[in-house]
Parts: sequence; structure tokens; C-alpha cells
Amino acid sequence: MPFDFYQPPHRILMGPGPSMVDPRVYQAMAAPLVGHTDPDFFGVLEDTSELLRYVFGTRNKFTIAISGTGTAGMEAAVVNFVEAGTKVAVFANGYFSDRFTDMCARQGANVVRSEKPWGSVYSDEEARAFIECEKPQIVMFVHAETSTGAYQPAAAICAAAHECGALTIADCVTSLGGMPVEVDANGIDIAYSGTQKCLGAPPGLAPLTLSGKAVERLRSRESACVSWYVDLKLIDEYWGNSHRYHHTTPITMFYALREALRLCHQETKEARFARHRLNHLAFVAGIEAMGLEMLVAREDRLWTLQTPRLPDGCNDGELRRYLLTEFGIEVLGGFGPLAGKVLRVGLMGASSRRQYVLLLLGALGTYLGERGGVAAAETVYERKAWRGGFL
Amino acid sequence: MPFDFYQPPHRILMGPGPSMVDPRVYQAMAAPLVGHTDPDFFGVLEDTSELLRYVFGTRNKFTIAISGTGTAGMEAAVVNFVEAGTKVAVFANGYFSDRFTDMCARQGANVVRSEKPWGSVYSDEEARAFIECEKPQIVMFVHAETSTGAYQPAAAICAAAHECGALTIADCVTSLGGMPVEVDANGIDIAYSGTQKCLGAPPGLAPLTLSGKAVERLRSRESACVSWYVDLKLIDEYWGNSHRYHHTTPITMFYALREALRLCHQETKEARFARHRLNHLAFVAGIEAMGLEMLVAREDRLWTLQTPRLPDGCNDGELRRYLLTEFGIEVLGGFGPLAGKVLRVGLMGASSRRQYVLLLLGALGTYLGERGGVAAAETVYERKAWRGGFL
Repeated sequence: MPFDFYQPPHRILMGPGPSMVDPRVYQAMAAPLVGHTDPDFFGVLEDTSELLRYVFGTRNKFTIAISGTGTAGMEAAVVNFVEAGTKVAVFANGYFSDRFTDMCARQGANVVRSEKPWGSVYSDEEARAFIECEKPQIVMFVHAETSTGAYQPAAAICAAAHECGALTIADCVTSLGGMPVEVDANGIDIAYSGTQKCLGAPPGLAPLTLSGKAVERLRSRESACVSWYVDLKLIDEYWGNSHRYHHTTPITMFYALREALRLCHQETKEARFARHRLNHLAFVAGIEAMGLEMLVAREDRLWTLQTPRLPDGCNDGELRRYLLTEFGIEVLGGFGPLAGKVLRVGLMGASSRRQYVLLLLGALGTYLGERGGVAAAETVYERKAWRGGFL
Repeated sequence: MPFDFYQPPHRILMGPGPSMVDPRVYQAMAAPLVGHTDPDFFGVLEDTSELLRYVFGTRNKFTIAISGTGTAGMEAAVVNFVEAGTKVAVFANGYFSDRFTDMCARQGANVVRSEKPWGSVYSDEEARAFIECEKPQIVMFVHAETSTGAYQPAAAICAAAHECGALTIADCVTSLGGMPVEVDANGIDIAYSGTQKCLGAPPGLAPLTLSGKAVERLRSRESACVSWYVDLKLIDEYWGNSHRYHHTTPITMFYALREALRLCHQETKEARFARHRLNHLAFVAGIEAMGLEMLVAREDRLWTLQTPRLPDGCNDGELRRYLLTEFGIEVLGGFGPLAGKVLRVGLMGASSRRQYVLLLLGALGTYLGERGGVAAAETVYERKAWRGGFL
């Protein structure tokens, strides 16, 4: 058994996550452990909550991180709020709404879906019509769809849901820390995310926030949650004043998340969102200058995850191997209905950098024999297009 | 918001976990990320499986780590193997069998319990009688009970369970890496653990192994598992040859676990178990020399987690605050029926060291006004009592 010390290859992570991690985060993560019931560690949890409120744009007291990766956040949202017979309306325009549907089905929920092609989003009118017709108890949508690169505005969905007394669940895995989520202003009741995308920490925790109404519904639930590990009533007792033992939290992941959030706070949300938008616009300009097209319509694109269409005859597996072996760049391909049709390029957190945009455009141009991309992107950087405002 | 870089206090972790972590593990953990679908990372997973087989004492192909802390391992064991109506027999002699019972109840299982006082264990005859009487489909026991310090031998339970066609689930959270678990020799079908105890990594993953019979039962299950996040059928597809995407694994935790397991392998299981036993015996000698008693009978004690009884009139909260503030030592107290009656002292992984044993005995002696403990422990070290063989 030849087990040497592991030396990972040097990768530039430009896929749908994990993203690059700032050295300060690695440094914080490797600090010596304290116990999960140490008075000092409860300070770390408090700081984490407070900093998460900043990036979520919320005053929700119940703002925590679940001890698992983003999918554990989705599962916590489902198993705590969806029971057998609960009527759940899902906006289904990509993979993560399908995963959410699968989780709801496992609870015996009554799921109704509005289906649109992958890469499209719902207009305010479409959203309202679906909710008014179905009158569900829970409305779920994916704010930032990692499988397609599409951005779904939240406000109209949440307003319509509240009019019929429903709670809203938003998957913010690929938006939190890179684009405005603004939980309170939008009226999102339950939002979850992951640490390894725009927040810029390694994977391992799932930030989650609950509105007062969501907390009320949680507290009034009579049946037991099928999960003990992500039972939010129990987890709340650990995070709250009683600090009652629930499970051993992943201490070093909290060190990492706290430092990553501190970086967000120092940069400020506004500057961070502007950076994500600028690099997105530059990348798109480069892609279009090479004669390629984007999957998602201009006004519906995420700034964090871009999906350029592959040119005819281009094998995405071969292209991705080329990028990985020649340049150490990780990007991923499409899957499901988008298999072989798009690349999925993340420009998130510490991966949203001018130098990476230009490197990737250069590498793509070399592979495709098209060289205009870098110059087109540079034009956007020179114009600093983001000064025109964002969202 | 005064958010400075977090500098944790220097703690000597001698509670029931997390334990101290070797600097090599911190170093491995802080290496730059690769993606969870990177070909290089699949090598890390393979190494981790192979090294886990070594510490588990198994040739089980299905040997993985769940993306959550130890409790996520328990939850995976429950939700994948316990359905509504499944008859589960639980050996209930401490907190973690209660937690397991709670999880089973959430699935609508038919749970039958054999109750014994906290700190006691089951004889082979008691174990066999309970199983033969109940004829369950699943038998669960806690191999190393973190709430009491009691060690439950596995072989007789597993033999009796198999005679009636039941699968066995063993909670090995506080034994794996510190005492022999020997899954194959004992006949354990489903074993899970955590990384932050005897394995000496930070918390964040739950090692888990399934026998061939357990895999068969998993594959033949027709109803959907209530959990998507810890659905072992789906996780198996990610770990297996197809490497099908399931969720983003906590990459850096795998770096840490792999290095911690590499340390186990280099030390060898035999030397590691002997070290845990020696430090256990020295600690007990010191405790007894100070006139204190152990909760658990001599032959039933874990080497990893010790539960000395507190002397009359000793306030455990005050004692623990003294140890923490004066010496930076973390130990925890008892809870449930043992609240205020015992200390829980972990000597696990990198915390199982002569220098920590002597420091803690010295600190306890100072607090209690009894000074004989250190000398008694030193006698054990001089005799190297472990040369007499172990288990």
C-alpha cells in the first residue's frame, strides 16, 4: 500500500464549484481545534451567524450553517417543512428543482411542478399564475441554477406565495456571496446555500436562514422530522442560548467559513457583486467575440456560473481534458438535456478574477482556433462596465 | 462588528472528542482544493477506503466516509436499513442507543429494547437470550459507549443475530482507531464511526462499512430512503466506478482523514491499541491512587474514554472550569443519569499521550488535594503494563 503524503495537483477551479479558496481561509482552517462545546467556539458560531446575515441580507435570528454540504441544506429545508401530504409547488427549470422534487416525494408530499426548458426562467406573470392556480403550502424555486446558469428573480414568486399563505424556499447555492440574495427584501422564508461557491470556503457546511414565519411553522409542527441529524428544532437548541449538545460540529469548517465571510465583509457586498458582474461580462464578451453563444438569454444570466454553448462538432469531454491537462483548469460540462451542449464555467468567489477569465479565454481560443476572445474581454475591463450599476 | 482573524485558545482536548490532531493532519488538510470530480480526487477516495478497511479490520468493498459528523453515520445506518415496521432490537445501556432508538422511531420502526443501567454491558448469555426471544430484523449495539465509558464485546451479539437472520449495526464512534473493532472477525454488518476521536482528524466525516449481506439488503430494498443526502445507493454510485455525481464532498476533510489514517497505518494498529491501553491503565492507576473510583467495572472499560466518579461534594462544573482556565484542559462531565457524578476523560488518538495523562492527574490532584496519582501512573509506565498483551 503506497500511501505517501498527498500533494494535490495545482488546479484552477472554474467549474460549478468548488471554487478557489483564499490563502487566508486555508490558514484559518488549519488553526488548532477547540471543542464544539468550548465557550470560545460559541463565539465563532455567533460571528458566523452575524456575518451570514450580512451576505444573506437578513435580520433573521435563525441564521446558521448545517453540518454538511449544500445538499444537506436542501435536505434540511425539505424534511423540516415538508410532510406527507404537504402541497409543494416547484418551479422546475433545471436539475436542482428535480433533486428537490425527489426529496419531497420521499416525504410523501403532494408535489406540483411548473415545467420550463433548462436555461429559461419564469416571468413575474408566469410565477403568479402558477401559484394562484395551485395554492400550495410551500413554494420552491432555484435562485441560481447551477445546472443551467439561469437567474430566477425572487420577489414576484415570494409575493404571490405569501398572498396564499405559502412559505417560500430558495436554493441560493450558486448566488450567495456573488449576487444579491437579499432574503428580507425579497421575502424568502427559507434560504440555503453552500460554502464552496461564491463564499470562497472549502465545501463542508450549508448556510441556512429562516424567517420568523418559517420558525413559527417549524415550532408548531407536531410530527417528528424524519431526520435527526438535520432536525432544525434540535440544532436550534445547540446554536441558541442553552447550547444543548446535538452533534459534534465540523469545527475547522467553521474556522474556514468565518474567515471566508470576513473576506466578504471586508470587500463589501457591493464591491463583491460588482466584481462578479464585471468578470461575467468580460467572459461573455470574449465568448461572443469567438463566435460562440450563451445558452441563457442576456437578461437572465447568472454572474457566477456561465454556460457557453459548444460549437458544432466540439467534444466537451476532450475539450475539458485539454483544459485540465494543458492548463490545470477545471470546468465542467452540461448534463441531463444539456449533456454535450454547454460548458459550465464558474466565476465565483476567489475564482472570479480577471487573470482567470483571460487565461480560460486564451486556452479556449487556442483549442478552437479563435483568438479574438481575450481582446474583447480586455475591452470590457478597460470600460469597467460594472460602473454602470448592477441589478 | 469587530471581526478579527480568529486565534483559538490553546486547548488540550481530553474530553469525549474532538481529540488533539497531529500537525501532519492539519498540514494535509490545508493543501489546495481539487474538485470532487477530479480524477486525482478519486485516488484520494480510494486510498481512504483502503486505509479505512485496515482500521475497521474488514475486506468489505463498501467502505466509505459519509459527508457529515459521526451522527450522520448513525443516521445513514438507520434510514437505509430501518423502514416503517422493521423490527429493531436495541441494547440500551447509554445515551447513544437512546439516540439510535429516537432515529428508528422517526422511521415508524418497531423498536424493542433491552435496558441495563448506564455503565454496564451485556454478557454473552444476556445478549443471546434477548435476541432469541425477540427475533428482530436488525440488532443494534454501541461498541464503545461515549456517555459511559463501557465496552460492549461484539462477537456473541453478532453470532446470535445472524442465527435469526438479523443484520447487526455497531456504533464504533469511540473505538475505531483506538481499540480493535475487527468488523469481519466479529461479524458486524454495518459499522460507523467519526473522525474526531481515536482516528485523530477534525470532525466532519463519518466512516462507514457494510458487509456483503448488508449490501444485498440495501440493493433489494424497494421503498425509497427518506434521506437523499445519506442514501447509500446513490452515494455508492459516486464512490464506485461510474463516479456519478451525487453531492459535493468535503474535499479538505478527506485530505485530513487520509493523512490521519496514514498515521494509524504507520504506527500499526497493534502499537496504537497498546498505546491506548497503556495510557488508560496509567490513568486509572492514578485515579485509584487518589482514592477515586471508576464508574465501569474493570473488565468492561474502554481504553479510549474513562469515567472516574467524582468524590462527594465535588461540583463537576467548577472542576471543569478550573481545568479549562488554569490548564487549558477540556474534559466533559456526565449527563442523563450520570449528570454531576462522573467526568468523561478521552485518551484518544493524539490525545492518548503520557504527558497529557500526567498533566491531567497532576491538575486533578492539585484541585482535590490528593497528590498520589502521578506517581501511581508513572509506575504503570515503568512497568509498561501493555507488554502483557491486549484484548
